[in-house]
Amino acid sequence: MKLITFISGNEEKIGLLTGNQVEEIEDKSLGSMLDLIDQIADETVDFARIDSFKKGRKYALDEVELLAPIPYPRRNLFCLGMNYADHAKEVSFTETEKKPDVPKFPVYFSKLAYPASPDKSEILYDEELTKMLDYEVELAVIIGKEGKDIPKEEALSYVFGYTIANDISARNLQGKHGQWFKGKSVDGYAPMGPYILTADEMGDPGNLQLTCYVNEERRQNANTKDMVFDIAEVISDLSRGLTLRKGDIILTGTPAGVGLGFSPYKFVHPGDVVKCEIDKLGVLTTYIK
Amino acid sequence: MKLITFISGNEEKIGLLTGNQVEEIEDKSLGSMLDLIDQIADETVDFARIDSFKKGRKYALDEVELLAPIPYPRRNLFCLGMNYADHAKEVSFTETEKKPDVPKFPVYFSKLAYPASPDKSEILYDEELTKMLDYEVELAVIIGKEGKDIPKEEALSYVFGYTIANDISARNLQGKHGQWFKGKSVDGYAPMGPYILTADEMGDPGNLQLTCYVNEERRQNANTKDMVFDIAEVISDLSRGLTLRKGDIILTGTPAGVGLGFSPYKFVHPGDVVKCEIDKLGVLTTYIK
Repeated sequence: MKLITFISGNEEKIGLLTGNQVEEIEDKSLGSMLDLIDQIADETVDFARIDSFKKGRKYALDEVELLAPIPYPRRNLFCLGMNYADHAKEVSFTETEKKPDVPKFPVYFSKLAYPASPDKSEILYDEELTKMLDYEVELAVIIGKEGKDIPKEEALSYVFGYTIANDISARNLQGKHGQWFKGKSVDGYAPMGPYILTADEMGDPGNLQLTCYVNEERRQNANTKDMVFDIAEVISDLSRGLTLRKGDIILTGTPAGVGLGFSPYKFVHPGDVVKCEIDKLGVLTTYIK
Repeated sequence: MKLITFISGNEEKIGLLTGNQVEEIEDKSLGSMLDLIDQIADETVDFARIDSFKKGRKYALDEVELLAPIPYPRRNLFCLGMNYADHAKEVSFTETEKKPDVPKFPVYFSKLAYPASPDKSEILYDEELTKMLDYEVELAVIIGKEGKDIPKEEALSYVFGYTIANDISARNLQGKHGQWFKGKSVDGYAPMGPYILTADEMGDPGNLQLTCYVNEERRQNANTKDMVFDIAEVISDLSRGLTLRKGDIILTGTPAGVGLGFSPYKFVHPGDVVKCEIDKLGVLTTYIK
């Protein structure tokens, strides 16, 4: 199933997306996507329960205003750095990073996403604050079941679904503040969407093409099979000693082709349009203002 | 005022602490400390409103079970690294860090605190996962009023209150995963409390002695006047382009004397008791198990 969060009549609602049709899920017990995730998982993530929720009005997709699928995650996004070898290499000898090419262990950082930005949102370019503004297409994994010390073999059964994230980054702030957090967490820097594809319908998340276009130029083009640490490894390793909770979101890293990776740099500026695409997950568009 | 969150009869409640007496704040509109913070600030943080909330039962402090003052912050903790010069120096040439001594700009990272741990909580030592387990006494600043691009001169008027945090850190994980996030975010690593002192009663937060004892040995002993970037500078700089929200918590860095700063290292192990003390804010005790 494809699930969305949207605004209709000034109210936040959740719905099923089929083609261009939205069917509201209006079950009284569900105020948000997080409520839905909370309710359907116990021992296992029971996707069939979604069918049992009361449905309401139908809309054409263009009648509603999309929000990020989880507009207010309970915890910052868990993010992976340098999780595609070609990207790790392209940023290794730039002025903001001096690291070995490919990490031996996953590089984790966090990103503010409360609120997360929807599809077709605008990101503010600020010549003074964010002059090295960059894009990063990433597969986002949404956790459906609480777990700690999760064995790698079971890790994918903890996934509720997948969506696209654009890990917007101000490279100058990443360098200036030592750790990456602030440069990843300026207002609006967490666009996600347009919808969640539930894990039961995804099949193998380890063979998805992901691309990113700036205007008409294809900048990133890779496959999730090229991750240094695959999704199951990441869930298992991250959960060592750290309880992952329902609704947690993990951004699994970006491949080569970010603005920082070019010489000269190819950062984004007002008027640019960034389109992140991933197989089965549609297109997430972000406008630079 | 001193404010606490506590459990009584299996319910989470908030209350006023006076001496050893707790008076429940049972106003129907307030389910949590975050609700209280949300309600009292608009143009200014109106501490007098706290008096107007309906009060309930009184308890002796030892009758109730304390939680962290904000047990479930909406966003990860905002943290400062190397914000005391002597601490920046002591960790500069250890195996997990190779940085210039004192940062030119604030070093921001984030720490998972959902849930935050209460006073007198236990932290699990795990020989395999967290063998370099460390303590860090820090002044925690709780934001009371939403703001972005906050001028330094106004910054302290955005503060709701202050409490003590122990920024528990697994040094081996900080090094292993490149960025600091995971080593700061293992389950239970965010003890805070025992209470919030509201900003109107704090006076100057820039002249508070903070100490940390491991068992009977005083390891850290410094004053908040020795911060590299003071609280007003941090709030102002952090809020550049990044909206701070009611209930956000900023950990303002730790002074010298952490386990990593000694040669040989003085990390903590099962049986150790860590006591963090800050003037006007009491004592936050953490047990290593």
